[in-house]
Amino acid sequence: MIDCNAAIAALDWSKEPQGLYAPIAYALSSGGKRLRMQLVLAGCRLAGGNEQDALPFAEAIEVFHNFTLLHDDVMDRADVRRGKPTVHVKWNDNTAILSGDQMLIEAYHLLESVPTQHLPQLLKLFTRTATEICEGQQYDVDFEQRDDVQIADYIEMIRLKTSVLLAAALKGGAIIGGATEAEQEALYNYGIHLGLAFQIQDDLLDCFGDPATFGKAIGGDISCNKKTYLLLSALHRANPRQYSELHRWLELTEPSAEKIEAVKALYIATQAREAAEQAIAEHTAKALECLKVLPQNSETHHLEQMALSLAKRNA
Amino acid sequence: MIDCNAAIAALDWSKEPQGLYAPIAYALSSGGKRLRMQLVLAGCRLAGGNEQDALPFAEAIEVFHNFTLLHDDVMDRADVRRGKPTVHVKWNDNTAILSGDQMLIEAYHLLESVPTQHLPQLLKLFTRTATEICEGQQYDVDFEQRDDVQIADYIEMIRLKTSVLLAAALKGGAIIGGATEAEQEALYNYGIHLGLAFQIQDDLLDCFGDPATFGKAIGGDISCNKKTYLLLSALHRANPRQYSELHRWLELTEPSAEKIEAVKALYIATQAREAAEQAIAEHTAKALECLKVLPQNSETHHLEQMALSLAKRNA
Repeated sequence: MIDCNAAIAALDWSKEPQGLYAPIAYALSSGGKRLRMQLVLAGCRLAGGNEQDALPFAEAIEVFHNFTLLHDDVMDRADVRRGKPTVHVKWNDNTAILSGDQMLIEAYHLLESVPTQHLPQLLKLFTRTATEICEGQQYDVDFEQRDDVQIADYIEMIRLKTSVLLAAALKGGAIIGGATEAEQEALYNYGIHLGLAFQIQDDLLDCFGDPATFGKAIGGDISCNKKTYLLLSALHRANPRQYSELHRWLELTEPSAEKIEAVKALYIATQAREAAEQAIAEHTAKALECLKVLPQNSETHHLEQMALSLAKRNA
Repeated sequence: MIDCNAAIAALDWSKEPQGLYAPIAYALSSGGKRLRMQLVLAGCRLAGGNEQDALPFAEAIEVFHNFTLLHDDVMDRADVRRGKPTVHVKWNDNTAILSGDQMLIEAYHLLESVPTQHLPQLLKLFTRTATEICEGQQYDVDFEQRDDVQIADYIEMIRLKTSVLLAAALKGGAIIGGATEAEQEALYNYGIHLGLAFQIQDDLLDCFGDPATFGKAIGGDISCNKKTYLLLSALHRANPRQYSELHRWLELTEPSAEKIEAVKALYIATQAREAAEQAIAEHTAKALECLKVLPQNSETHHLEQMALSLAKRNA
């Protein structure tokens, strides 16, 4: 089995000018689970392919993902990523913009090495996915200013911003592994539901997680009035009294422990928390359903376990 | 003959979210000569191809070029481009970053439509060129902080930042048109020398141009101590007295009409101006030399005229 962290660490960024490439090496060195890369390789193995054939596509997906993090951190003014200063803090905004651009170009450079017969299809899949992720990021920005965001809008936003990359990772691997079109689509849809369950779980953990395991302060989304699945559900489900109470708290923009506790209580009282847990269960079930059309082997079993463990994760 | 401005205007940016796509439409609407696009089509016609086959590659090159302008304007804090507010002024920095990213992805999207048999080669050419342009931009940034920049470093920087895109435009068109490898390389090298002559001429015009035709204030490069061909040549050619006089002016960082006049006089006295004119003549001659191995037709003649008129341009 390919060691994803080792494969990413083996990419050579020692070339000149280092002002361009050192920030790329830095952005890719902070590790993480390399989840998307793993999904490419799993999709390939599941379809009976040799995972080595899927390595360039897996690397392209991983470099692309880290490019989006780099530019998102500039736009969000995020100072820390995985315990380390972000690129625009360690260097500056211009470096983060230009080295980020080059990372996106490097992702396409890696695509040149995919099996030639699959190049046109993988290029299209990659570019469509990249486009959807930018669209998702734009919707996320737009939602901050909008008062009419519905739960369905939110689901579509996180589908674009988070799910399609997991889905495309699996599908790309499956294409390289020689899967049928039906299998490719099943894996793609599994990835979509996995991503949705993952993101809604993230919203729950931000609010109800254990600070000891979650790694971030609890209630960050509440403090900045982020339109999460929980907030949109609570607004949708609240009775008039709960609705106006929630709105009073939304008007408070300073950090407040009292606000966090009060809004959490409203999420419970309006059953928004239950609705979120149910949505996670539904998307997990749909993800598992997608796996049924696939060859039942140890890889399929692994994806099954991944969906099930996601619904129980606490970090 | 394809009307390049009409072809760019026909690209559809009416899709959602408009927060992402409207800035792209805006950035592409400001016109310009569409020089790089014209070069793709010319390269294709010169090789005997149908220029319609080269249109997607031409559009990709043009969209990519405008992406670099968009992100460069953020990094340079440039407020105006072709008489209109830049995207980060009309919207904001985050919009310029994200819509710029999407423009780069759209350039790759356009590449999906190149003739399939040429896709691998054109993808490689495009990505290598995009990489070189980012490297050139980084060298340009690095040079601001360096005191040891040589003329050869400067030539290499403008080769990367300006020339390779003209060269790749011509070569990509030639590939699509069915040119031999020797012809492709000849056109590529013509583009390199054309770009070098163009940029050195730009340095000259910024300093000795006619304000009535140049369109920008004269002496901008001198005011900001930009390490142009003229400045590097003057530093290289100056006698000790001229050298220390030049350095005294470089220490003055406020805008000064007196500085502009004094430095211009030094460019003449050190024969830096003559050296720049000679470099333009040399690169023009080399560009013309490259054309000799190509089929001699009206397209070749057109490229010949382009190189010759460049050396005489005043805007």
